[in-house]
Amino acid sequence: MTTDEKALKLHADLVGKISTEAKCKIKTREDLSIAYTPGVAKPCVEIANNPEDVYKYTMKANTVAVVSDGSAVLGLGNIGPYAAMPVMEGKAVLFKEFGDVNAVPICLDTQDTQEIIDTVVRIAPGFGGINLEDISAPRCFEIESKLKELLDIPVFHDDQHGTAIVVLAGIINALKVVGKKKEDCKVVVNGDGSAGIAISKLLLKYGFKDLTICGLYGILSNDVKDLNWAQKEMAQVTNLEGKNGVLADAMVGADIFIGVSAPNIVTKEMVASMNKDAIIFAMANPTPEIMPDLAKEAGARVVGTGRSDFPNQVNNVVAFPGIFKGALEGRAKQITEEMKLAAANAIASLVPDDQLSENFILPEAFNPEVAEVVSKAVKENI
Amino acid sequence: MTTDEKALKLHADLVGKISTEAKCKIKTREDLSIAYTPGVAKPCVEIANNPEDVYKYTMKANTVAVVSDGSAVLGLGNIGPYAAMPVMEGKAVLFKEFGDVNAVPICLDTQDTQEIIDTVVRIAPGFGGINLEDISAPRCFEIESKLKELLDIPVFHDDQHGTAIVVLAGIINALKVVGKKKEDCKVVVNGDGSAGIAISKLLLKYGFKDLTICGLYGILSNDVKDLNWAQKEMAQVTNLEGKNGVLADAMVGADIFIGVSAPNIVTKEMVASMNKDAIIFAMANPTPEIMPDLAKEAGARVVGTGRSDFPNQVNNVVAFPGIFKGALEGRAKQITEEMKLAAANAIASLVPDDQLSENFILPEAFNPEVAEVVSKAVKENI
Repeated sequence: MTTDEKALKLHADLVGKISTEAKCKIKTREDLSIAYTPGVAKPCVEIANNPEDVYKYTMKANTVAVVSDGSAVLGLGNIGPYAAMPVMEGKAVLFKEFGDVNAVPICLDTQDTQEIIDTVVRIAPGFGGINLEDISAPRCFEIESKLKELLDIPVFHDDQHGTAIVVLAGIINALKVVGKKKEDCKVVVNGDGSAGIAISKLLLKYGFKDLTICGLYGILSNDVKDLNWAQKEMAQVTNLEGKNGVLADAMVGADIFIGVSAPNIVTKEMVASMNKDAIIFAMANPTPEIMPDLAKEAGARVVGTGRSDFPNQVNNVVAFPGIFKGALEGRAKQITEEMKLAAANAIASLVPDDQLSENFILPEAFNPEVAEVVSKAVKENI
Repeated sequence: MTTDEKALKLHADLVGKISTEAKCKIKTREDLSIAYTPGVAKPCVEIANNPEDVYKYTMKANTVAVVSDGSAVLGLGNIGPYAAMPVMEGKAVLFKEFGDVNAVPICLDTQDTQEIIDTVVRIAPGFGGINLEDISAPRCFEIESKLKELLDIPVFHDDQHGTAIVVLAGIINALKVVGKKKEDCKVVVNGDGSAGIAISKLLLKYGFKDLTICGLYGILSNDVKDLNWAQKEMAQVTNLEGKNGVLADAMVGADIFIGVSAPNIVTKEMVASMNKDAIIFAMANPTPEIMPDLAKEAGARVVGTGRSDFPNQVNNVVAFPGIFKGALEGRAKQITEEMKLAAANAIASLVPDDQLSENFILPEAFNPEVAEVVSKAVKENI
């Protein structure tokens, strides 16, 4: 069977990849009177008297909502909330299996920014965190930033920050491999959507100085017309020389290329025009911006992709389960830039120096240490 | 330890009575590629092309949202969404343990009728049904009826209909015990909130003719001032003789008394004034309208309460798990009056005729047959 066939069979066999399970069995009248009426009134009254006790007596302490409007699902685009369900259930599976965090898929029957914000605020009491997923840019920026203002629980758009954190972790280790310093590197990010912008922001926060974003129009600058507000904001803090041109122009002399864009749009010539010991993260899925073998032939030293069948897979699963685990355990009110940087450093640290190489810059997703180490780092930086 | 102490300990030990669990383990790269990317795209595309397939590939098929705004929780009143969480989690436990239905507590940070309606509509795509819980009257009537209009999945306010169904089941059997016919019985329902009104409606639908509702003002009639719209509606179809007076007046000559009101408000004299072989359902919790021994001394033949320490406990848990199980399995678009009547008859049928007695008119909550029999009856009446 192909992967598609296996996937369809699995989904049809399970009819839902997650279930809710009772942590207390109800076999006797006494069980019922303690887990439900009349006994349940007691924790209710405690919480009514002291709202913080909701973390002491309820699932809020360890449960996130995985919220999507289905507007930008995988590479499939705007397929709506029903068709988004398998992805959100999959995400919930990963939260549980990798981070031991309960997660509930919430697929919204609205794509109106304000309605999404209102809805998430209203369902928040029972959740300890909100993981936004597959919401299209630039709405995702506004939704996340308003929710951070309005809620006192962590709100995290994984397509942005999960990706950015794992990319940064990979870059930290790739720089060690090639022996370059962040201050000296010229970075090109191809992709001006949610992931591209979040990666750019986190790299700048980490300390990269020379960073250029490209979109379908070419190099992002103040001269480009019809940008959305998030892209305009980035034009202020990137491409400080105010260059214009196409992606190929941006890549000349660059040390690092990060693609969150489209298949096969980077040529060997473009890679060859980069600085010596170039680092390429070509993360378009399933077909990268350039295939690793071609990039290597053209002189790239470290190549990462989104795929599990090449070395250096950039996979959010090494980030989000541990990040929420740590944030929930530490009762963080939000996930700050410091927590994100700590997570990236923790992920990078999981590749031991003596094993670090061109083909091993990121930890295995299945390394059981990952979520532990990430959650600890996040918790220490709350 | 007291029940309160045990309940508090259980809740503190568990920190959440339900968890979400992965039905597929993720141990290998292939597991990941089938449950998540890239394989997950396949069921997504299938659902995008054929929306009904959401029932084939996702948890929507067997998952309900247990929705409350915390405005009328148990006997505790308006304690808000945080303090309501232990009750909603308890309900979710019962859904799973008795009906094998997944259930997710959703406690809403709003008590505005329209906002509740909007929010539930927007989160509905991932759920196969909506169980409304502990929402105060008369808002609960409007919320339920609007949601039924707007959604194509079952919406069921358990405080109303669950209670009504179990009461009717008990009455059906109690009538057999006392040898009376519904057409000949005079019924008094004390309580004009959500449960009292729903019970009255279902009894009328079942075929009772002479039914009188009482509230704090006494007998409900068109003459009573300051009624809400739901009470006014009931004044049209009950108390057909247009009597005025207090509860004691209503009970003179009655065959059936149903209390969903307050402790100790029915006296032995009031019971003695009823017709021979009176049936008393005194369901105020934890202290009934009249204690069973007093009611019996005053001449009542069958007495039920909400308590597990007396015979004939009226317990919703014999209804809602099976009702949703049947509705979900049969892919019902809503839970109709016919389905409710079928559920009540099914519950009544679970007490075998040869065991039926004054002290055994309702099945045990822990009888594993209950949810099966109820769900089958519901499914056959979709």
